[in-house]
Amino acid sequence: MTLIKFIEILAILVGAFSGFIEARRKRMDLVGVFTVAFITAFGGGTLRDILLDKRPLFWVTHQEYAILIFILALVAAPAIRTLRQVVSERMIVIADAIGLGLFSIAGVASALDAHMPIFIASMMGVITGIFGGVLRDIVCNEVPMVFRDGKPYAICAFIGSWMYLLMKKFGAEPDFALWSSATVITALRLITWKFDMRMGR
Amino acid sequence: MTLIKFIEILAILVGAFSGFIEARRKRMDLVGVFTVAFITAFGGGTLRDILLDKRPLFWVTHQEYAILIFILALVAAPAIRTLRQVVSERMIVIADAIGLGLFSIAGVASALDAHMPIFIASMMGVITGIFGGVLRDIVCNEVPMVFRDGKPYAICAFIGSWMYLLMKKFGAEPDFALWSSATVITALRLITWKFDMRMGR
Amino acid sequence: MTLIKFIEILAILVGAFSGFIEARRKRMDLVGVFTVAFITAFGGGTLRDILLDKRPLFWVTHQEYAILIFILALVAAPAIRTLRQVVSERMIVIADAIGLGLFSIAGVASALDAHMPIFIASMMGVITGIFGGVLRDIVCNEVPMVFRDGKPYAICAFIGSWMYLLMKKFGAEPDFALWSSATVITALRLITWKFDMRMGR
Repeated sequence: MTLIKFIEILAILVGAFSGFIEARRKRMDLVGVFTVAFITAFGGGTLRDILLDKRPLFWVTHQEYAILIFILALVAAPAIRTLRQVVSERMIVIADAIGLGLFSIAGVASALDAHMPIFIASMMGVITGIFGGVLRDIVCNEVPMVFRDGKPYAICAFIGSWMYLLMKKFGAEPDFALWSSATVITALRLITWKFDMRMGR
Repeated sequence: MTLIKFIEILAILVGAFSGFIEARRKRMDLVGVFTVAFITAFGGGTLRDILLDKRPLFWVTHQEYAILIFILALVAAPAIRTLRQVVSERMIVIADAIGLGLFSIAGVASALDAHMPIFIASMMGVITGIFGGVLRDIVCNEVPMVFRDGKPYAICAFIGSWMYLLMKKFGAEPDFALWSSATVITALRLITWKFDMRMGR
Repeated sequence: MTLIKFIEILAILVGAFSGFIEARRKRMDLVGVFTVAFITAFGGGTLRDILLDKRPLFWVTHQEYAILIFILALVAAPAIRTLRQVVSERMIVIADAIGLGLFSIAGVASALDAHMPIFIASMMGVITGIFGGVLRDIVCNEVPMVFRDGKPYAICAFIGSWMYLLMKKFGAEPDFALWSSATVITALRLITWKFDMRMGR
């Protein structure tokens, strides 16, 4: 349980950073930057918790994350040009891949915790992993990238979620199952990105 | 209750099919096709249940529907061209009209079950009937068709919902009230489509 | 408590009116006009209540507001041209500013009532104040205005929410805290509008 919490924290920071960059790219103002960063970071987990009817939400009981994103939005607004020169696309993709792995497995674990059937648990993993970005794209008035670019982004989350579910099923040590599945998702995402792999349409 | 369940199942299959066609029309990839089909099929009922705070959600306790939509998305992706030659616009409209009737009345029945006041119950019927399509259009980055084309789509759902509410009020036999109201919605939708009727703006 | 209810009622009517005007500007039909007015009026409070897991929703237990918006949508559709000649942009801005103040403080009060930590309570105030408009813009297929125009709209709600939180903290008389904070938000909004003030981007 402590491990799941730690995973979720890591994933939130990465998600906020990615949302932050995206909102700036859309030339949003301070309010937009904060909101989009917040939605990208917490959107997937919040949707999952609403669907599962879990309360209080993670960010409600841990207001320090909301405050942290708020301060980052305030501080980074003037520093954005410098930041974008320092942060390469490669760094964003890597951070995002780590976030995808962590979020997804945290989502599956949380769904299992709520006694969800196995296919639904795998869906909750993918939802937690990708819906921060989906909601971000909807707010930014774009067709969600993850639904149309043919890249196996959600597929990576789906495969890793099933790996975790099967490892749990066959009695693997919990911490090992968590970390190895999250790592597999991150690795798959990075490999498919590196070789620009796409699904048939 | 068994009848309501059966109605909801029928409506889900029709909804998934319509979302499936729409996502392909937007040239979405496999992930988009599955998600949009899923949202179109379950979006209206899910929104209603979140508003009414009913859990677990229908598709959570019946994972077989999620699995079915998943398999359909997998299988139909390569077969889509053939499928679109076989399936005419007329067939989509008819299937969709049946879905509208079934979903709406299932929505009203569910709201009455939760002791909602009568006008809210009629709204829940319309929400269940049309918000799958509304959420589909939002995800596809379009102004929801049902809000702007002037066709009496939601109006049909609204009229049938009130017919059901009044029949229940005046002691009609439950099964008869359900089926006749759903049929009226479907018939109204098909008639207004046939004659291309529009509301004044 | 009675005061909070009264505040919410006032804010709802103003919100519906603003959504109503906006939907007509997008040339939506009757269904769109009603839905967008409804979402603008109740969207912020509904999202807050879903996040806080409060039920039943305000508009569910008070169906008279839904009926009122329904009748207004029906009656105003033919009268829209006359109405737009009578209602100036200035009147819409003023009404909207009053709504912003009332909604936001009602949102903070409701969050405190649910024992939310202080920063989250301030966020709930802003969410209640601005997300009716955010959801309206998403449904109307636009990037939410409040995230991109650089005007300190949400900032006004944020400042007033903190004023209310601090007044409560330091033992101010509840009614006085409510009304003065709401008034400050409205006044700040009108002043920043009058002088066309914008945040740095």
